[in-house]
Amino acid sequence: MSAPVKAVDSTTTCAGMMHDLGRRAKEAARVLALAPTHQKDHALTAMADECRARGRDILFANAQDLAEARKTGASAAFLDRLALDDRRVAAMADGLAVVRELDDPVGNVMERWKRPNGMTIERVRVPLGVIGIIYESRPNVTADAAALSLKAGNAAILRGGSESHRTNRAIHGALAAALGKSGLPATAIELVPTRERAAVGMMLAGLDGAIDVIVPRGGKSLVARVQEEARVPVFAHLEGVCHVYVDGTARLDMAKAIVLNAKMRRPGVCGAAETLLVDAAAAPSHLAPLVTALLDAGCEVRGDERARAVDARVRTATEEDWSTEYLDAVISARVVDGLDAAIAHIERYGSHHTDSIVTEDAGHATRFLREVDSAIVLHNASTQFADGGEFGFGAEIGIATGRFHARGPVGVEQLTTFKYRVHGSGQIRP
Amino acid sequence: MSAPVKAVDSTTTCAGMMHDLGRRAKEAARVLALAPTHQKDHALTAMADECRARGRDILFANAQDLAEARKTGASAAFLDRLALDDRRVAAMADGLAVVRELDDPVGNVMERWKRPNGMTIERVRVPLGVIGIIYESRPNVTADAAALSLKAGNAAILRGGSESHRTNRAIHGALAAALGKSGLPATAIELVPTRERAAVGMMLAGLDGAIDVIVPRGGKSLVARVQEEARVPVFAHLEGVCHVYVDGTARLDMAKAIVLNAKMRRPGVCGAAETLLVDAAAAPSHLAPLVTALLDAGCEVRGDERARAVDARVRTATEEDWSTEYLDAVISARVVDGLDAAIAHIERYGSHHTDSIVTEDAGHATRFLREVDSAIVLHNASTQFADGGEFGFGAEIGIATGRFHARGPVGVEQLTTFKYRVHGSGQIRP
Repeated sequence: MSAPVKAVDSTTTCAGMMHDLGRRAKEAARVLALAPTHQKDHALTAMADECRARGRDILFANAQDLAEARKTGASAAFLDRLALDDRRVAAMADGLAVVRELDDPVGNVMERWKRPNGMTIERVRVPLGVIGIIYESRPNVTADAAALSLKAGNAAILRGGSESHRTNRAIHGALAAALGKSGLPATAIELVPTRERAAVGMMLAGLDGAIDVIVPRGGKSLVARVQEEARVPVFAHLEGVCHVYVDGTARLDMAKAIVLNAKMRRPGVCGAAETLLVDAAAAPSHLAPLVTALLDAGCEVRGDERARAVDARVRTATEEDWSTEYLDAVISARVVDGLDAAIAHIERYGSHHTDSIVTEDAGHATRFLREVDSAIVLHNASTQFADGGEFGFGAEIGIATGRFHARGPVGVEQLTTFKYRVHGSGQIRP
Repeated sequence: MSAPVKAVDSTTTCAGMMHDLGRRAKEAARVLALAPTHQKDHALTAMADECRARGRDILFANAQDLAEARKTGASAAFLDRLALDDRRVAAMADGLAVVRELDDPVGNVMERWKRPNGMTIERVRVPLGVIGIIYESRPNVTADAAALSLKAGNAAILRGGSESHRTNRAIHGALAAALGKSGLPATAIELVPTRERAAVGMMLAGLDGAIDVIVPRGGKSLVARVQEEARVPVFAHLEGVCHVYVDGTARLDMAKAIVLNAKMRRPGVCGAAETLLVDAAAAPSHLAPLVTALLDAGCEVRGDERARAVDARVRTATEEDWSTEYLDAVISARVVDGLDAAIAHIERYGSHHTDSIVTEDAGHATRFLREVDSAIVLHNASTQFADGGEFGFGAEIGIATGRFHARGPVGVEQLTTFKYRVHGSGQIRP
């Protein structure tokens, strides 16, 4: 956390201000890394209380942001993401309380072993340092992301969508006040105080060594920019092109329930299925009921020739469809020639996020779980379980599809790293 | 491992050739990821056999490299690193056999838990993918690094120092032949077949998504370039500015043994101590014996005023000395005002590699191990234990000081990542 920080003229420039902000966060991270659990938990309680107490201020700021966004012609969906009301503020405060109840990962001994020379080596969890969070218009991320970072002993630098800057400032004010009341540095949660876009670029460059990891929260273009430009590690997924493969021995009732849930429970989440693959061996009995169930549930189906033969409502899938994340009530569907073809399809078109096989054949399940190279692979369960809460992590800051450090749901534990503690009694190396 | 790979004209250009090499390595990685342990072990045995069988060819190629290096006026130290002889070839083959004996980490279930809905979730080790290794003139790295990558189920792309290209080609020829004999793709270990420096830049850019991680092996300027330019994760340490802090209650005999060993066992390794810190409370009794022992062992000491007062041979330490990695029989030494000052010094000047406290005070030991933010922290043991072999990892590809994924010694286990396997019985998400 204390890599050398270059001296920069910090009086008035955006760069200077960001540099100072990074330096302060780094200093705060050092305090937070050593803060006891009860102090962090006290801060989380105080943060929830402050958010509730300042509810009116937060809603007032939000109303101003909404008015400005309306003037600039923002879409209804955008306005809905931006808007807070009493219920949403309460949910935000409740979310802080949920994070407080999570186990503190810091200090956990992950492994311990003894060497022949008598030394004991421990691998122990420590915080990552400073987490940079770049997000779009949902103001609740301000509280959620800050809370998860704090619980894992990290400082956070938050850069929210500029359309929600008043709301974010009001929420951040509540969080910073709560930190102060708990004896923790208010600078442990920093909000980038400028709408200048250059600030994002500086964060992606690591803010002179101050930022240890970037977490982007938002749409594909934001994530793509972050992945393209970041010079520090990124916890993210660009897209979730998730598959359900219905194998030859799948039970139809189970397959139907899983496919419908995987696509239609919430079509817009990253763990929603985008492609249905049906084994040719199961197609005669399973394809029509599955496709019909999806259509009847209001889902658009884009299929290969076999799927189109089921129902006139099925549209023609193009090559592009197989790699498209619809995030909507649309699914592509095709018949594949058994397990190998299913795995090959997923490896070719998928995004290594979450993929599921429905089968009664244990050998096929084992092979699918082993050979599909995705962060999450499931047997006889819906892809919509791709979620930190559903994994038992309590809360998550996102899902990562990178192969490093955090893969799959990123909860508090994934916001830590480790160090080795060696206990000796005078050992020297021969 | 199968992110889309862009089409590139691959006929004659260096870029095209490197692109093809990356694509082949990625395909091979997929095979290696699923290869059973016995097949990988068979390949490692065959690799050792081939290296022994081709010893004469390897030495012949090495003699040509040495002759060319001598002509260009290479230093004696450089020539020594480059030179092979029968003993070194045998040691290389033995090293391959050591890696074969390591436990295969792939497929290990790291954690397993059951959810209230009956689903079982497993976190299971899988290979990282393709490892790019960029190294300088030591040709044995060709075999060592390839073997560790292979054991962990990864493909390797090797780019050795251009002065050793004939030797590397001969060693690589042996390894590739052995892979073929074991039924594994020879392309699982690729040697960059060009001395063009642009090839390194392409590897650092990730080779069109083919390379998952870069491991640099060599001097500080190589590591600095890799860390500066790489667009993929890097396992490395730039330097090891390691400390031994002799606390007020340290036993003098233990402190002397540890300090001498930490500096003088092998002064040129990254875990060698570069700075001795002595608590003011221990200075009257401990400082002179420690400094004298170092001087008498042939170590240059650069000290603060108190250290200089011990012996006329002690030179004056400048501000720069406190952050210098000598990699030689030189140490800086100063008196600090207790544990807090020692920790502050290490945080300010250290490199977060390896630091040790010598003390009989358990409370001080606990605080030091907790508060010093380094990959490895030791109590009453020499910093020279910073080594994968000494940690029980069997072999290592290097030491990492980054905070992500691999921290400390990087052995076969650190060359893997994980995925989540979920076993259900029809669960859908409410």
